[in-house]
Amino acid sequence: MPIVGVIGGGQLARMMQPAAINLGITLRVFAEDEKSSAHLGAYRVGDYLNLAALKEFCVGLDALTFDHEHVPASLLEALESAGIAVRPGSKALIHAQNKLTMRRKLAELGLPMPAWMAATSAADVEQFIANHGPEIVVKTPIGGYDGKGVRVISSVTEVADWLADIHDYGSELLLEQKVDFVGECAQLSARTPSGEFKTWPLVRTIQRHGVCSEVIAPFGSPAQRVAAEKLAKTISEGLGVVGVLAVELFETASGELLINELAMRPHNSGHFSIEGSKTSQFEQHLRAVLDLPLGATELVDQAAVMINLLGVDDSNSFVEHYPEAMALAPEAKFHLYEKTPRKGRKMGHITLVGPDSAELLKQGQAAREVLYRGSKEAK
Amino acid sequence: MPIVGVIGGGQLARMMQPAAINLGITLRVFAEDEKSSAHLGAYRVGDYLNLAALKEFCVGLDALTFDHEHVPASLLEALESAGIAVRPGSKALIHAQNKLTMRRKLAELGLPMPAWMAATSAADVEQFIANHGPEIVVKTPIGGYDGKGVRVISSVTEVADWLADIHDYGSELLLEQKVDFVGECAQLSARTPSGEFKTWPLVRTIQRHGVCSEVIAPFGSPAQRVAAEKLAKTISEGLGVVGVLAVELFETASGELLINELAMRPHNSGHFSIEGSKTSQFEQHLRAVLDLPLGATELVDQAAVMINLLGVDDSNSFVEHYPEAMALAPEAKFHLYEKTPRKGRKMGHITLVGPDSAELLKQGQAAREVLYRGSKEAK
Repeated sequence: MPIVGVIGGGQLARMMQPAAINLGITLRVFAEDEKSSAHLGAYRVGDYLNLAALKEFCVGLDALTFDHEHVPASLLEALESAGIAVRPGSKALIHAQNKLTMRRKLAELGLPMPAWMAATSAADVEQFIANHGPEIVVKTPIGGYDGKGVRVISSVTEVADWLADIHDYGSELLLEQKVDFVGECAQLSARTPSGEFKTWPLVRTIQRHGVCSEVIAPFGSPAQRVAAEKLAKTISEGLGVVGVLAVELFETASGELLINELAMRPHNSGHFSIEGSKTSQFEQHLRAVLDLPLGATELVDQAAVMINLLGVDDSNSFVEHYPEAMALAPEAKFHLYEKTPRKGRKMGHITLVGPDSAELLKQGQAAREVLYRGSKEAK
Repeated sequence: MPIVGVIGGGQLARMMQPAAINLGITLRVFAEDEKSSAHLGAYRVGDYLNLAALKEFCVGLDALTFDHEHVPASLLEALESAGIAVRPGSKALIHAQNKLTMRRKLAELGLPMPAWMAATSAADVEQFIANHGPEIVVKTPIGGYDGKGVRVISSVTEVADWLADIHDYGSELLLEQKVDFVGECAQLSARTPSGEFKTWPLVRTIQRHGVCSEVIAPFGSPAQRVAAEKLAKTISEGLGVVGVLAVELFETASGELLINELAMRPHNSGHFSIEGSKTSQFEQHLRAVLDLPLGATELVDQAAVMINLLGVDDSNSFVEHYPEAMALAPEAKFHLYEKTPRKGRKMGHITLVGPDSAELLKQGQAAREVLYRGSKEAK
């Protein structure tokens, strides 16, 4: 059976492993350290900035894919030149690595998104505040995730440090209109090198403190669903995406969907699919990067809800209250990532599948409350 | 998180791994050789007849469980004396290891089963043929599985070799009435050390050449379902079972269910539960042996069908036709066990979940036909 290598040993690589075991695919993980979340199966520790180590890791792989977007494009190009099937390829992945490159490409494709501009100076920032303020969003084009590298500002002084170090960020900052959204949602899809393309149902994503807290599937009016699927297809094809693509969207008061962020890998907004869909995002990603036919993506019931378990302090790994939470919610599927507890860190998640999303959300939140109980700084 | 050790590295141990990864449970496998099906994660190769090796393997485990029933009771008792949480325990497991011990216990519990007797001589066999023939079933009490250790005979000469070596089989053979059944079915359940007990829906099992070929869930009239659940509960409690219990049943022309075999571990008749039930038998087994609360066992849709992939020759590992089968059946979940191909060997399975079992069976069989195609001795 084919062999897939994954750069990065986080929970996304971890959750590819059950899908690989089921399909009989061999997964090899290239991780940061020995105690990464994806420490199961064939596992190597190494530095993803070291081309020689990467090349050695790629020997015998049928496809190379990723748990994160941090491998520099120059290294990806070098691997591609060496004949390695890098999926998604460097030409696609650059759009997930660099938010300015992404905005420029999406503009070229004529897709709906917040007003934006590339800033190289304090004057640019002041101009953008004048046009779109009082508050605007400033992002470092590379390296941000889960709210990092993002600031909401009303004065240029609030990004004085970024402007001073602007060369570290590729000499440009991304300025974005602060969208007055009524909610956020995400469109997940997958595409193969042969061009097969499938979407999952549009989902509502609920963020707290810039981090995904809950996901509710399905979401949206028929028109919104059609629009989101079309967006995903245009992006996937326009950028040459291979594997899973997550498009994070703002929903405006008028119901319009504006593109917030892109990720070209399994994504937190798609964890519901492990039990909620016929084919999970992790299985689909493996199928896609190997150019196997894609699986069906329909929900297995009317609704699915995913509840993130975020670290509440540096000691609660949720294990203590696990039996109590399981007893409370026998229908809930519990996922723990075996990560060292840290406040705000994604430690695991709970999924519930059933006919009524409001009821599922209530059950999942109740189970989470039990897991959080007794922690030093319970939320 | 807790650590579970599994003796045996077959596909049952393999399929425990995804459930363990999801729950954050660590699974350690003690396998026959380096190329066992469950070669993923923490893995040790050793001889399960070697007590010292077993004891060493058990260091740090929260529970020890099994992929097969072949560890002798004396070794299990020695491990229990050393304080290891052997689950199911030796006192329960002996009934799955020795078919005569099982028959005696089930008789004591007053449960319905074929007429049977323990034979120690040719005269016993002749007597039983006279009473229940022309054909009867003879079984070696220990060591049989998938049709091995079972013969249908009409003359004592057909088991002359077993009678000659009867001391190798504990000095007794099991004789059973050859039930004129209209079909077979299986009742899966799980029980925790604390006594929590849950069943999955009764399933129809279709055997070919003594090996499970297809499983259809759910099966049976309301009365049959109630009867089967009651049987499973009586057996589970009466024998002190911990973990998954599979009760294989004959269905007679009058609709009565007679106990054929027992297995105290995840079982081929329960593979449908991976995608077909809220909680799979593999997850439930891990929960049960750790005395965690059991998960919900309802089907996620109206029906689920499991199609075994049996080796058709010594070379077809199904990989060649995998893409074609996946394209044909995008709703099918494919499972390959990474075992060396051998005619008749369980190499993998396909599961389909949906509203109509007849349709699912058709789809699954069509996908299997594609995988079998081109093999030297296609079935």
